[in-house]
Amino acid sequence: MADAAFSLDPRLETTSFPVADWPLCHVRLCDDARWPWLLLVPRREGVVELFDLTTKDRAVLIEEATLAATVVRDLIGADKTNVATLGNQVPQLHVHAIGRLKTDPAWPGPVWGVGQAVPYDATDRAALIGRIRNMVKL
Amino acid sequence: MADAAFSLDPRLETTSFPVADWPLCHVRLCDDARWPWLLLVPRREGVVELFDLTTKDRAVLIEEATLAATVVRDLIGADKTNVATLGNQVPQLHVHAIGRLKTDPAWPGPVWGVGQAVPYDATDRAALIGRIRNMVKL
Repeated sequence: MADAAFSLDPRLETTSFPVADWPLCHVRLCDDARWPWLLLVPRREGVVELFDLTTKDRAVLIEEATLAATVVRDLIGADKTNVATLGNQVPQLHVHAIGRLKTDPAWPGPVWGVGQAVPYDATDRAALIGRIRNMVKL
Repeated sequence: MADAAFSLDPRLETTSFPVADWPLCHVRLCDDARWPWLLLVPRREGVVELFDLTTKDRAVLIEEATLAATVVRDLIGADKTNVATLGNQVPQLHVHAIGRLKTDPAWPGPVWGVGQAVPYDATDRAALIGRIRNMVKL
């Protein structure tokens, strides 16, 4: 059961779009068409660090993060996936899952802080979110 | 049981020092005194992505990564921990756990690719590794 009190940090809300609610995490698509980038936000109030979650929640989180990694891989035939929780700018615990190509503009570095986000065209974004929803039924 | 065939990528070996073997992961200290930075390498041969591990191994991995996060937090009273698996440069699956301070030279960005590593003095490094070993008994 997720916390009824869960609320999303406005900085995550304004830079990404809702995709789904998986058993633990609220899943969002980052608005950056340069790479497929999902955010997983555990629906637990006040959680900042992995060690703030219970062991049981962490076991679910790693499975959902792994599933997100397979999604971003499959969307583009990624050469590598990056899975990370940083939280230096937005403390609310969130896990990034990003599909990377050896030809992408940040390779082989990480994507954070590289250049400017390229927002999705609204039609493309809706199609992509629909595609992700069809890939995962939880 | 870890794989008998496990071998460490030489690029990880030359930039870090051995700390311990936890139930799943070989644990190393990155040779960069700017921040406490542990590497966790599951002792499984040929594993690149989270989805290459079994569910059981992933449950252990997230617990060991969380423990590593508490270690890097406690070493410096970190403001935030960063936990990530990227692998764009070294494919062998490895998880970074890094203790961050709001005053460190990369804050609030990630640490990868920022400036030059500051190698530990050998005496300081041995003391730090000893301290970490005393903090965690697995």
